[in-house]
Amino acid sequence: MILAWFSVDCVRANVVIFNIIWVPNKSIGGKSGQFLTPGGAVMIGIGIIGLGTVGTGTYRILTERAALIRQKTGLDLGVVRIAEINPRNVKGKNIDRAILTRDAMELIRDERVNIVVELIGGMKPAGDLIKAALGLKKQVVTANKALLAEKGEELFALAKRTGCDIGFEASVCGGIPVIRAIRDGLVGNRFTYILGILNGTSNYILSRMTDEGISFGEALKNAQKEGYAEKDPTFDVEGIDAAHKLSLLVRLAFSSPVTMKNITVHGISSIDPVDIGFARDLGYKIKLLAIAKRSASGIEARVEPAMLALNHPMSSVNGVFNAVYIAGDRVGPNLFYGRGAGSEPTGSAVVSDIVDMAKKLKSNAVASVPGLVVSGKYREAKSSPVPYYLRVMAKDTPGVLSKISGILANYKISISAVTQQGRKLSGHVPIVMVTHDAPEDGLKKAKRDIDNSAFTKGQSVHIRIEEGNA
Amino acid sequence: MILAWFSVDCVRANVVIFNIIWVPNKSIGGKSGQFLTPGGAVMIGIGIIGLGTVGTGTYRILTERAALIRQKTGLDLGVVRIAEINPRNVKGKNIDRAILTRDAMELIRDERVNIVVELIGGMKPAGDLIKAALGLKKQVVTANKALLAEKGEELFALAKRTGCDIGFEASVCGGIPVIRAIRDGLVGNRFTYILGILNGTSNYILSRMTDEGISFGEALKNAQKEGYAEKDPTFDVEGIDAAHKLSLLVRLAFSSPVTMKNITVHGISSIDPVDIGFARDLGYKIKLLAIAKRSASGIEARVEPAMLALNHPMSSVNGVFNAVYIAGDRVGPNLFYGRGAGSEPTGSAVVSDIVDMAKKLKSNAVASVPGLVVSGKYREAKSSPVPYYLRVMAKDTPGVLSKISGILANYKISISAVTQQGRKLSGHVPIVMVTHDAPEDGLKKAKRDIDNSAFTKGQSVHIRIEEGNA
Repeated sequence: MILAWFSVDCVRANVVIFNIIWVPNKSIGGKSGQFLTPGGAVMIGIGIIGLGTVGTGTYRILTERAALIRQKTGLDLGVVRIAEINPRNVKGKNIDRAILTRDAMELIRDERVNIVVELIGGMKPAGDLIKAALGLKKQVVTANKALLAEKGEELFALAKRTGCDIGFEASVCGGIPVIRAIRDGLVGNRFTYILGILNGTSNYILSRMTDEGISFGEALKNAQKEGYAEKDPTFDVEGIDAAHKLSLLVRLAFSSPVTMKNITVHGISSIDPVDIGFARDLGYKIKLLAIAKRSASGIEARVEPAMLALNHPMSSVNGVFNAVYIAGDRVGPNLFYGRGAGSEPTGSAVVSDIVDMAKKLKSNAVASVPGLVVSGKYREAKSSPVPYYLRVMAKDTPGVLSKISGILANYKISISAVTQQGRKLSGHVPIVMVTHDAPEDGLKKAKRDIDNSAFTKGQSVHIRIEEGNA
Repeated sequence: MILAWFSVDCVRANVVIFNIIWVPNKSIGGKSGQFLTPGGAVMIGIGIIGLGTVGTGTYRILTERAALIRQKTGLDLGVVRIAEINPRNVKGKNIDRAILTRDAMELIRDERVNIVVELIGGMKPAGDLIKAALGLKKQVVTANKALLAEKGEELFALAKRTGCDIGFEASVCGGIPVIRAIRDGLVGNRFTYILGILNGTSNYILSRMTDEGISFGEALKNAQKEGYAEKDPTFDVEGIDAAHKLSLLVRLAFSSPVTMKNITVHGISSIDPVDIGFARDLGYKIKLLAIAKRSASGIEARVEPAMLALNHPMSSVNGVFNAVYIAGDRVGPNLFYGRGAGSEPTGSAVVSDIVDMAKKLKSNAVASVPGLVVSGKYREAKSSPVPYYLRVMAKDTPGVLSKISGILANYKISISAVTQQGRKLSGHVPIVMVTHDAPEDGLKKAKRDIDNSAFTKGQSVHIRIEEGNA
């Protein structure tokens, strides 16, 4: 029997902490339905929508680490409702039937729920549920990068109007506390450069291709077998997931209203192990990099496989690990590294947001200025010149190299290093070049001319070389 | 002319945000001395004690980035007093004479100062000034690792009693927001392992020794010339500064009352470039590592030069950079990397604490549970067995290796790899071994026996090999 609810209103002016707490049936130290006297603990009620991988990790940490969190923060957090429609996601998890519902709206409306945690992912119904929660002035925590990338503007604007917050630490780089690092830890900085390895699946596949010399197809099959890649891996290997996350980082760090349309996206499915080998010979590793640069002319944002010098700290980010390298004008470069996915790593980030919200609720704090509401127009900068790796499959006849460098010179591209490799590939000889800084469009035109010439075979391969400094 | 002061009391029950603000002479948008109506901006007053390297960086960021901070957080921060006794530290910095004082107590007592920023370093008078500020219920921000390592317990206990907070992000790893990552971002985790490169000076010296094959003495001289090492470098190169920082990390992450007495400390001054070379041949780098482990039997904390595998993410932390690798039971390993010192990098961390405090003041929040007040006794664990690198200078006669391995076997230490190097050093041959996991005391005894034998010359060298996994 529940007689008294503890309810916290997140609108600033109305927040009062009552010393009246909700006493669930099983509570220890107080009879059910009691009003506790001053000094009694105040419980913040959590509602979790979605008990999949991340929902389960979050639930586990909140229940198994409740005492630790109380000791560290003085907060009593209680999972008071869970919404889940799939019985298989509930089975064997020792969850009190009484807190379960199939109806997420019931959870949102439940007065005991102060913080709504959306962990079902996808666009619908997640977006509507978050709107409903904000409409009822509940704090929201989500790991839903796709939704925030597409509808973040709208959701954060609504949160601002209702005086609530949306926590989204778990939406970028799983367990790595990179959102609060950028928002709080480096608050005094203006940012100009972001380099991210934001997708664990593609990083895992590239790492195996690099270590074992296997093809993309084989590495993908292994990753699928080991549970690191979905049956349909498109989102991960084609760079879309990384672009979603990059858009959140750009909004947060550059305060610019970037959308997916503004991000150039290329995946890793066409990467050939041959180029990984040549990259190593030249002192580089190939990574799927999310890159954002801010200059006077605007912002450049892209996700693509690129080469990174072996001694750059990001090039030792291997396997399923993620990392963000970000340069602030005052602090210089910072790098944050950790597990970018998984049940408890991502749950750890969700819990950090829940604790943040709970602290604010308990202390009567105003909402933060929502980090993803940004004003102004997005100004897209022309892609800045960078060095490129270029592999041409040429006939093994004299004068080929001079012809290639002649074509490059037509577009004002000069070569800083060239190696003609002994290994013949299907009767042709790979000529591997590194250019000086070259404009992307010029390089592509030169490549087209080279590929149309009589002395080459098939398509050349070009890969961006990212110097990785601000 | 100043007619009304804005004063915020950090004790929970009494906090009220007045819509009355202090209007300095130069304020824009309101005549001097006006009481502003609701909707007027509230300024949080900052007092900086010490305008040295970090103080200057902090002052610059607060003044040059005031608009950015307002845009990001909605906060108006104003440096209303600066205390500095050395005129040279003030010269050329374009500071309004009116806010300057030589008397730090005057700054602390000033009603406009809501947040006292102690940046003079050292034990005295810094400790007394912080106590005075806390006594007057002012929030405190400091970068003073030595003081917190020695007197942290006492200062945080006082802060707790007066309901105030002490921000100390800048005291560990300069600009890297590692304190808030551990405290907030990873709050749901229990920590068992910390690996730190916490001292930029010694990392810079070791990096140059590694890259150029030069001696410690030469690398130190270069570092001093370039301003990366003090005239008396003892604190940095003998591991004391790193141990101060490690003690703060251990208190925060393990909630254990460690003191400097509990930390085994060895510096880098006796590192020989010969061993750096052998380490590279074996696939390792030598770093001055701060290591803390928590097990059922207690805590082991040490600062010493140790070998780290080249593919460990910490081994690419070079030059003056710092990094902390910390493993949480839920999130797995996280790594945080950036500049560990310098005017604006460290100022960036100070500013992040100031913003935190200001948010709390503005939103009427309770103080956080102070992170460095911990209960219980420190339980010191016996040092856990690890692999060791061992270099013995042996006479080039048959049977030497068998004698050495025999001595090691007496202490139950077995060898996993051995190389007898061609290069003779002063007529003797270096025998380089890597042991399996060995107890530290056993290894030292074996080394003593080896050094006392007739077939060796001088002292052998042993270096810990840190596997770097939780």
